[in-house]
Amino acid sequence: MRIVITGGAGFLGSHLCDALVQAGHSVICMDNLLTGRMENISHLLGHEEFIFLRYNVCDYLHVDGPLDAIMHFASPASPQDYLEFPIATLKVGALGTHKVLGLARAKGARFLLASTSEVYGDPLVNPQPEAYWGNVNPISPRGVYDEAKRFAEAMTMAYHRYHGLDTRIVRIFNTFGPRMRAKDGRVVSNFIVQALQGKPLSVFGEGQQTRSFCYVDDLVRGIVGLLMVDSDKTIEERTDKKFLYTRANDQIVASVHDPVNIGNPRELTVIEIAKLIVKLTGSSSDISYHPLPTDDPKVRRPDISRAHALLKWEPQVPLEDALSRTIAYFRKTLSQ
Amino acid sequence: MRIVITGGAGFLGSHLCDALVQAGHSVICMDNLLTGRMENISHLLGHEEFIFLRYNVCDYLHVDGPLDAIMHFASPASPQDYLEFPIATLKVGALGTHKVLGLARAKGARFLLASTSEVYGDPLVNPQPEAYWGNVNPISPRGVYDEAKRFAEAMTMAYHRYHGLDTRIVRIFNTFGPRMRAKDGRVVSNFIVQALQGKPLSVFGEGQQTRSFCYVDDLVRGIVGLLMVDSDKTIEERTDKKFLYTRANDQIVASVHDPVNIGNPRELTVIEIAKLIVKLTGSSSDISYHPLPTDDPKVRRPDISRAHALLKWEPQVPLEDALSRTIAYFRKTLSQ
Repeated sequence: MRIVITGGAGFLGSHLCDALVQAGHSVICMDNLLTGRMENISHLLGHEEFIFLRYNVCDYLHVDGPLDAIMHFASPASPQDYLEFPIATLKVGALGTHKVLGLARAKGARFLLASTSEVYGDPLVNPQPEAYWGNVNPISPRGVYDEAKRFAEAMTMAYHRYHGLDTRIVRIFNTFGPRMRAKDGRVVSNFIVQALQGKPLSVFGEGQQTRSFCYVDDLVRGIVGLLMVDSDKTIEERTDKKFLYTRANDQIVASVHDPVNIGNPRELTVIEIAKLIVKLTGSSSDISYHPLPTDDPKVRRPDISRAHALLKWEPQVPLEDALSRTIAYFRKTLSQ
Repeated sequence: MRIVITGGAGFLGSHLCDALVQAGHSVICMDNLLTGRMENISHLLGHEEFIFLRYNVCDYLHVDGPLDAIMHFASPASPQDYLEFPIATLKVGALGTHKVLGLARAKGARFLLASTSEVYGDPLVNPQPEAYWGNVNPISPRGVYDEAKRFAEAMTMAYHRYHGLDTRIVRIFNTFGPRMRAKDGRVVSNFIVQALQGKPLSVFGEGQQTRSFCYVDDLVRGIVGLLMVDSDKTIEERTDKKFLYTRANDQIVASVHDPVNIGNPRELTVIEIAKLIVKLTGSSSDISYHPLPTDDPKVRRPDISRAHALLKWEPQVPLEDALSRTIAYFRKTLSQ
């Protein structure tokens, strides 16, 4: 298959490039390098089935030749990044998604949207099934990312329903692994870097908020599975043609065109993660406590029964192994 | 003042054009006439302080000369319209809002966004204060409007915070009055037209869902009040500069830059409205029952304490008077 990956030089995007090139596909990686980095894909440059294009997908977007699939991963994705680039985050979620959907439609390509557990906001149910509507503050600083992704989902579904585009939506929960940036403000990378440098681990609030961390290899396997699985009944076929008059309580069986959570349901408190990382790094770091950010979610854990039903997917890499591999990456990076 | 109104040929936009021209302002009305109608503004054509430009604000947007304010009212706004034009609805909320914010920034103009009670979705609290985050299904057919407006709010706030733009956001609750279209599918216009034609009034579900209906003159007075009120402390001045570390439970005093509900808090069930309209029209129509649309909100009622505190606004026109004026309009329209 010939596949475009926007945001292909980012943390997740670059692992997808690797996985798809290794599986024998031809990959066109697009990135404007706002938060992506060439070093994530430098080992792929020169591979005959890999092309890098430096594009801002909010602007002009053109690809020569046929395309089988487009995976839209371009977006600032750490809170630190999207608070620094709020308007770029909103633009890539809306204008960018619109442009990329247009390209998919023009090429007759399958479209996969990288959505996020942030669409659930500060969830009032735990774990979160895909049918949960979320609890998001639209006007909070943090809302730029959440609303951009909710909008991107709405537009993706509109293209699916209105134009019949073959679309997929993955809701990605917290993920970690090699190629996270040392300073992007995410919990696992922050903790590992602090532990390796012998600095106190920064915990926000009392650290009792929970997160579910998925190793990047598991995540990539789930996403590729969702991209590759055959189409089934569209939403159109499952509901009344007019959409307007679908009863809310009708039993609706999930389709591959519905959003699918991919993440690890093993839930830990932030304090537990901190202590595990201190142990695995052999560090003597303490923990330091800081005020909780605005609208920081208190719990976050995927219900992955849909991914299991549709894709037979579940995470496989044990947390301790995954953390050890990530620690090894940062140990090497920090020493350079 | 020199004021642009996008969607100025629509139901609300055209009443705003009237009010502002009458108050001595110079009005530039933009509309692509997707759901707006020339007959709503034909009486203003030729007025020396009124200009009509047929523009799709998602595309190129240019205005000669200085501007004091821009009011962004362009959007399909009835469920029937945004289900027919889902992608246009998403585009005008995101790409259109982005373009119009850019124009406001370039001109140093104040920006007012027409948002909606739909940002509250199917609310779990009643009445809805502005601090309520809402309960919206991002991927439902109806979600296109809700998410477009939530996105537009997020982007408006980002321009306020990041570029210091003087912005206002009005969340408009159900409104009725002359210039509603006979066939746009909204409750009051549907019921009046059916009653005047002696047809059964179409009630969805059991009609026990509530709505709060504001007369357009009251609404326009509230919106113009919000546009004209002086700036006060920005959100930046009320919170930590970094935004990230504002405590969720800090007392935050509302500013004119925060969203403001404008609507009538008098809540009636759909059945009550139906019966009142049958009475006021002197019709002999029955009521017919139909299946409830997907995700139709069960309650919807504004908490207007913020509008009262900031603008001293509250509705004044009694419901029966307002309905009678609207019935007179439809009686005339239908006879033509």
